[in-house]
Amino acid sequence: MTVLILTCEQDVTADMVVAELDGNGVPVVRLDPADLPGPVALSGEYVRGGFHGHLSAGGRLVSMSGLRSVWVRRPGAPASNAAEPSDWLTEESAQALYGMLRSTDARWMNHPDAARRARHKPWQLSLAQRCGLPVPATLITTFPQAARDFADRFPDLVVKPVSGAHPQEPPRAVPTSRVAPDTDFAAVAFGPTLLQRRVVKRADIRLTCVGDQLFAARKPVAPDADPDEVDVRFATSDALWQPVDTPSSVAAGVRSYLREARLAFGAFDFAEDAEGMWWFLECNQSGQFGFVQIESGQRIAAAVADWLAAPVAPTAPGALPNGGRAWAMEGH
Amino acid sequence: MTVLILTCEQDVTADMVVAELDGNGVPVVRLDPADLPGPVALSGEYVRGGFHGHLSAGGRLVSMSGLRSVWVRRPGAPASNAAEPSDWLTEESAQALYGMLRSTDARWMNHPDAARRARHKPWQLSLAQRCGLPVPATLITTFPQAARDFADRFPDLVVKPVSGAHPQEPPRAVPTSRVAPDTDFAAVAFGPTLLQRRVVKRADIRLTCVGDQLFAARKPVAPDADPDEVDVRFATSDALWQPVDTPSSVAAGVRSYLREARLAFGAFDFAEDAEGMWWFLECNQSGQFGFVQIESGQRIAAAVADWLAAPVAPTAPGALPNGGRAWAMEGH
Repeated sequence: MTVLILTCEQDVTADMVVAELDGNGVPVVRLDPADLPGPVALSGEYVRGGFHGHLSAGGRLVSMSGLRSVWVRRPGAPASNAAEPSDWLTEESAQALYGMLRSTDARWMNHPDAARRARHKPWQLSLAQRCGLPVPATLITTFPQAARDFADRFPDLVVKPVSGAHPQEPPRAVPTSRVAPDTDFAAVAFGPTLLQRRVVKRADIRLTCVGDQLFAARKPVAPDADPDEVDVRFATSDALWQPVDTPSSVAAGVRSYLREARLAFGAFDFAEDAEGMWWFLECNQSGQFGFVQIESGQRIAAAVADWLAAPVAPTAPGALPNGGRAWAMEGH
Repeated sequence: MTVLILTCEQDVTADMVVAELDGNGVPVVRLDPADLPGPVALSGEYVRGGFHGHLSAGGRLVSMSGLRSVWVRRPGAPASNAAEPSDWLTEESAQALYGMLRSTDARWMNHPDAARRARHKPWQLSLAQRCGLPVPATLITTFPQAARDFADRFPDLVVKPVSGAHPQEPPRAVPTSRVAPDTDFAAVAFGPTLLQRRVVKRADIRLTCVGDQLFAARKPVAPDADPDEVDVRFATSDALWQPVDTPSSVAAGVRSYLREARLAFGAFDFAEDAEGMWWFLECNQSGQFGFVQIESGQRIAAAVADWLAAPVAPTAPGALPNGGRAWAMEGH
């Protein structure tokens, strides 16, 4: 049984996982959907009530029924490397590839439907609340007056995108920023705006979850740090990510979150306040983990490889096989 | 409790359903996400572990928790009517609107995840097979030799898109066409190609499913019809769609299909062969039904209105509430 990794050519994080799989003698096919059609080819036949499909990449031919798991890591858009790319060819190639893969019994990290749903920030906030994770007071609005009322109640606010990265090529991360006290909020009418009570934090927490394995890392905020540097991705800091224990209530909350979200992988960001409380900021279903592993020494790539290689369904969240009726996606 | 209809302004099919709902005294809010932000506005607050959201459209304000159901009929892209539209604003607005709606307990026709999955033709074919619906022998391939071998075994073939409508603006339906006997298939390497044994049909069948209600209509093929006119959407015919009974095995198959696909609505196309067998061609989760209702007299719009207005979850496929854990999306 083969592990299929969908990612682009330059992906050192995938390299780390492939090395683990190779070391364990697990067959791997790695391909970029951008190379379909061309270097990547496929064929599927529906005859006499049954389906038989094959994928070909890098001179290797693998049966769709021989796929153990699919890791949707950082795939290019299908057919984007074609000699004559077009939206139409991308759509045809995407439907052919993912339509066939969706018909297999392979386990997904993460399933495309679960991944897409998990990107919705408003949905994330509701789910985190339901799972008992503390969420800073948040408003998403196009009503200027609602924003003004919210700022009266919570004067120290940050603003961040509703959707995540700016969809330019390559995607650009939009930093979270503090809201100035004299902000008028009239512009809120021109685009949904996410306002959140600023957590006065003493550390950032990155909690990387692989199946039921949790890897928490902590980066302390320097005592003399600029309070306007609210976004750890853009802050200047000499501190390193260091392993830290996950409080049991947080562990229960994130496991519940991943189970409800049907995610096999999730990278949670928390802000730790002065009392040690971890405040949920977001869960990135395709979050990077290479930088954490390098600084913290946590063996995250090995955990990903183990999950992908697991011969039978472990009890981990999102780790159910999606054959038959076993892979269930909950609502919301 | 209010029914929310997401569709564009010019939509006579939605008009038919709104008239039914109005006649039954069911509150309706109809809006086009293209008008967000602007004529459509939203606000959602996450405070003290709870979520409270509102939508405003056409001078009406509705609470997210007061939504009974959401009909995703023919919505425009969010923010596409904005004064300064952009991909970024569309993404922000889409995440805000659908992210909040996904957090409600409203029932969906159809849920966005189920709808997206249901568009994959290869997945449709596998699911139809598993549900016991007869599927004509089909090949989807980028291997020219696989296409040649298939054509040897099934000399009378049609070719059709893998993905459906051509993604131009407005979308253009690509007709199903017969494959000439001397076709070389070398071009298959440049794009996934769907080849299917041509069913020599004596009628087209449109089976519209609303919850557990089935509306089958039949249009006979004229005895002197051009055998090259394989696509009913493009064929010249004086025949009308007429109601017909659904064979019990087909009824069981489509109900199983909708349940597995978590669809509350589906429009199935079948080809009826000389022996009366219905061959599955596809299931369009957003298929039109106005033209069938007008010719056949079947009360499909009323059935849609009844489904949307249902106060509690009926036992229909896809009709489970998505509150709590009740709305379950199966795998594949």
